[in-house]
Amino acid sequence: MSALAFDVTARDGAARRGLLRLRNGVVETPAFMPVATYGAVRGLAPSDLVALGAQLLLANAFHLHERPGEAAVAAAGGLAGWSGWRGPWLTDSGGYQVTSLADRAKVDEEGVAFASPLDGRRRLLTPEGAVALQAALGADVAMVLDECIPAGSSEPGRIESAMERSLRWAERGKRARQRADQALFGIVQGGADLALRRRAAERLAELGFDGYAHGGLGLGEAAGARAELVAEAQAALPPNAPRYLMGLGRPEDLVAGVALGVDLFDCVVPTRHARHGLLFTSQGSLAIRNARFASDGDPPDPACDCPTCRTHGRGYLRHLFQVGDALGPRLATLHNLRFYLSLMERARRAITAGSFASLRSEVEAATRQRVA
Amino acid sequence: MSALAFDVTARDGAARRGLLRLRNGVVETPAFMPVATYGAVRGLAPSDLVALGAQLLLANAFHLHERPGEAAVAAAGGLAGWSGWRGPWLTDSGGYQVTSLADRAKVDEEGVAFASPLDGRRRLLTPEGAVALQAALGADVAMVLDECIPAGSSEPGRIESAMERSLRWAERGKRARQRADQALFGIVQGGADLALRRRAAERLAELGFDGYAHGGLGLGEAAGARAELVAEAQAALPPNAPRYLMGLGRPEDLVAGVALGVDLFDCVVPTRHARHGLLFTSQGSLAIRNARFASDGDPPDPACDCPTCRTHGRGYLRHLFQVGDALGPRLATLHNLRFYLSLMERARRAITAGSFASLRSEVEAATRQRVA
Repeated sequence: MSALAFDVTARDGAARRGLLRLRNGVVETPAFMPVATYGAVRGLAPSDLVALGAQLLLANAFHLHERPGEAAVAAAGGLAGWSGWRGPWLTDSGGYQVTSLADRAKVDEEGVAFASPLDGRRRLLTPEGAVALQAALGADVAMVLDECIPAGSSEPGRIESAMERSLRWAERGKRARQRADQALFGIVQGGADLALRRRAAERLAELGFDGYAHGGLGLGEAAGARAELVAEAQAALPPNAPRYLMGLGRPEDLVAGVALGVDLFDCVVPTRHARHGLLFTSQGSLAIRNARFASDGDPPDPACDCPTCRTHGRGYLRHLFQVGDALGPRLATLHNLRFYLSLMERARRAITAGSFASLRSEVEAATRQRVA
Repeated sequence: MSALAFDVTARDGAARRGLLRLRNGVVETPAFMPVATYGAVRGLAPSDLVALGAQLLLANAFHLHERPGEAAVAAAGGLAGWSGWRGPWLTDSGGYQVTSLADRAKVDEEGVAFASPLDGRRRLLTPEGAVALQAALGADVAMVLDECIPAGSSEPGRIESAMERSLRWAERGKRARQRADQALFGIVQGGADLALRRRAAERLAELGFDGYAHGGLGLGEAAGARAELVAEAQAALPPNAPRYLMGLGRPEDLVAGVALGVDLFDCVVPTRHARHGLLFTSQGSLAIRNARFASDGDPPDPACDCPTCRTHGRGYLRHLFQVGDALGPRLATLHNLRFYLSLMERARRAITAGSFASLRSEVEAATRQRVA
């Protein structure tokens, strides 16, 4: 099982810098994965993502199963050949989306039964099916199917039974594995319960995966509690395997995760906020639709090196949103993704320099500011 | 009055190749201008347009007056500084849009009174105001305000009076001219009446403009009649001034215009069709949403050198349209614009080689084909 190799190259407290070698490329960690649910980061071409410094993209196996179907992707050579992003891909199984988005989802030991949100037909997603689907899509990294219960949930018995079921599904997923060239990550569940998170991590470590993810976080628990939950699980995980905090978050969440020794992150926040005209900047958040920017010729963030800030002023960007030109969301997406990717570059350098704590303080201070 | 210089460098029959020197750059003619109504070609960044080989963009002064207002554009250094497209710009006055789109437009000798489609407030666009507006926007080339009557119109008296009024407005526009560094083009009207077109061209030539446009064509007249109308007017225009056929058209319309000695073209067809998933290819038109392309890995047009065709297959492009990703319209727009710009490059080379007639035959044959 050597679908990946991971080397930690520097440490600063619990924070760590590393190199993650995957089938289609090398990823410098800690890394942020732009979200390309349907096989594209909305509005961006692969060449845009290369220019921004993206290294690894996240797609959703369930959504790609619905459209265009894994056969079409596989026929084009898998995600890398089909999409034109020839670097590494990670696919989430889509279990979270199935249970949260699908109509009348019903979870039992066999898997998740649901009505397709696309055509209403009945579907059954099983741990084995999720692995087979991801094998067909051909990402560098696949995720096991899990039963995701929000950490903010207040049903302790329900959390424990979902955690135990997720472990049984992880084991079934591992047994169903088809490709030696595709890494498979286990997912720690257990809600906001430290003991359950610890037990899940121990059991996943015994099963043995190429990497491990924290699931169900960022869904209602306090940020302080989250740090404890992540740390508690990681104490039981193999120290040299990559760790992935799923679905989080804002810049302050990322640096908090990096401080705990998390290696991989994804979140829809930078891209979704961009489409709504909300920009992350070195001076705090900026709502580009605000009328005060109508005649502002400054770049969205004077400290930013992205293509948007190098070329366009705030007034022009605001105008694009006002007239509904798709170039507006695209330029904002380029900017926000570059902000996130640049933040991770700075985190990696700071870890090597032993100055990560001061970078974290700086990021936390900026989150309390607004340009408008 | 030397806001432009125009040199004809090769001829093939009536078709001609030239160099049009404007304040912000040199344009090789015959040239196609991508339409950037609100100061952007929808979804495309200036860097995209440079890569495609665009030379000159068309914006609409009336729409920019509504949003963001000419003051905001002027404060950012005019269209070139504001938009990031630092090459040449041409602005249409917007008279056509005002009369066709605005609510309750009323045309009299003074100008066009109308209710703003944006906020309902009363506006008055005069020949002098149109020139002042375009001076503030700062394009390389401005157009006089005209009263545009479709060539397919069946009211002969109405056509003649609009043509005569357009001539009086052209004279007023010329007198109101403010900037020596901005070219001003007159517009030939006269519906589908050869004698009126000839008279309009003679009178505009007497007034003297930097260039001349054919207006009101492509609006219902037969293509054969259109060629006669263009030729009749051009016989009366100064032979060494650039000629612009406004708002036309499909590839076969462009080569027909080039054959008559037209130098400049614009049309929304390539960009609008692209947003609807209709692609121009060397093998005919291609409707990318068609289900038969779902697993087709071929580029949209194997003979095309655009970024879309170099990177993506038809199946992926179709998928982007299916899931509503803005990248789909963008990739299709890149392709269609490259098709048009490449067609004009081929026309220029063919004129130099004396083989323009065979290029035209080839284009006309391709328009009768469909890939799907």
